[in-house]
Amino acid sequence: MVLALDLKGPRLLERALKILDEVYDQVAAVKVNRHLSIPLSLGELAKLVEAVHDRGLPAIIDCKVNDVASTNEVMVELFFEAGFDALTACPFTGWEGGLEPVFSLARRMGRGVILLAYMSHPGASRWYGGLFLDPFTLSLRRAFEAFAAQALNWGADGVVVGATRPWAVELVARVLKGRSLIFSPGVGVQGGVVEEALRAGADYLIVGRSIVESPSPRSAAATFNRLVEDTVARLHGGALNA
Amino acid sequence: MVLALDLKGPRLLERALKILDEVYDQVAAVKVNRHLSIPLSLGELAKLVEAVHDRGLPAIIDCKVNDVASTNEVMVELFFEAGFDALTACPFTGWEGGLEPVFSLARRMGRGVILLAYMSHPGASRWYGGLFLDPFTLSLRRAFEAFAAQALNWGADGVVVGATRPWAVELVARVLKGRSLIFSPGVGVQGGVVEEALRAGADYLIVGRSIVESPSPRSAAATFNRLVEDTVARLHGGALNA
Repeated sequence: MVLALDLKGPRLLERALKILDEVYDQVAAVKVNRHLSIPLSLGELAKLVEAVHDRGLPAIIDCKVNDVASTNEVMVELFFEAGFDALTACPFTGWEGGLEPVFSLARRMGRGVILLAYMSHPGASRWYGGLFLDPFTLSLRRAFEAFAAQALNWGADGVVVGATRPWAVELVARVLKGRSLIFSPGVGVQGGVVEEALRAGADYLIVGRSIVESPSPRSAAATFNRLVEDTVARLHGGALNA
Repeated sequence: MVLALDLKGPRLLERALKILDEVYDQVAAVKVNRHLSIPLSLGELAKLVEAVHDRGLPAIIDCKVNDVASTNEVMVELFFEAGFDALTACPFTGWEGGLEPVFSLARRMGRGVILLAYMSHPGASRWYGGLFLDPFTLSLRRAFEAFAAQALNWGADGVVVGATRPWAVELVARVLKGRSLIFSPGVGVQGGVVEEALRAGADYLIVGRSIVESPSPRSAAATFNRLVEDTVARLHGGALNA
């Protein structure tokens, strides 16, 4: 499970650190979103990342990079200098003068890039799920399947596919064939079902509100992990992978 | 002209305020990008916005909103509370559970939304310029033209089309028919030509590096404005609109 620290309200850093302390031994990584990256200064974000690293976990910045190269470079350098181990990027940006420096900076600094393939909200179907004319094959193809193929070509360390569309997780898993990780948000509050996402091939489930908005994040995380373990045991006969 | 405060390096707020003081009477609005929004705290951004307002100008946050609704809401509320008058949003996000709350929050708070139609970098051609199957007409359509139509349907206050593709500016202008403003980045360092962008129908040119990286931002802005005035005079026989 990847913990999404999607907090709102006052004393964000303090509360984020408290939740981290409660659940760090229940999660595989911590994802930081605009909820924190906009209000907190870079110095505060660096402190949070340090706390994540101190607990033996990697930190992902969910910045969904989608700008021109010169701006992406600034953005990515700032986040990597703050200590983040990986970031998310939006494939609609394209390569030349867009995501190219994001991947080259990540390589140079030994960090990861996770490419969005299919976001979890209903409206994502319009473009992520849209049929476009592939300029190479001149045939119609769904954007998210092309993104999964691009993730492999570009050497992305992972892709994001919403758990709200397990059929899309399955199609992406077929393209990736295990050569890149599948991160799947949208279980819990957004309605995605753990079993369906795991059966479809998700490697990590991203969980935010169900844990951080719970009165007891620790027990919410433990309950969630038990569900994942039981599900994995049922699906694969025992091996634990989330 | 819209001034893009795309600064790098130390003392960002101080330098941004200095450039603002030098050029505020030469520009129509000020755009703040990730160059500033990531390293500066929200309090510092609010100070910058206040300075922009004190000089009688509106402030645009170029945050290219592209997340799920719950995150977009947080993002948009934070930026609007910091005083920004308008923001940019990425149409590939889609409406339901995506950009819908961005537009409704903007309406409620009396702020503006500027939708990306075609970004200025080379790689934008892959998806912004891509041919998609329109689910309503079942015919192939370029994404950026669909975005211009969506901008009208969604009540966007403006759209962004790169000056690097004046033909795209012209096609967008035909869709908008003056019912939404066209903001055009990419003149100067990125290679767009002022005359071509204005002739194609751009209402505002967004200029960043040519001014903020100049040894004299004031004279760079003045030179740029003279070029715009001369061009407009030549094209329209006198009326000044940029």
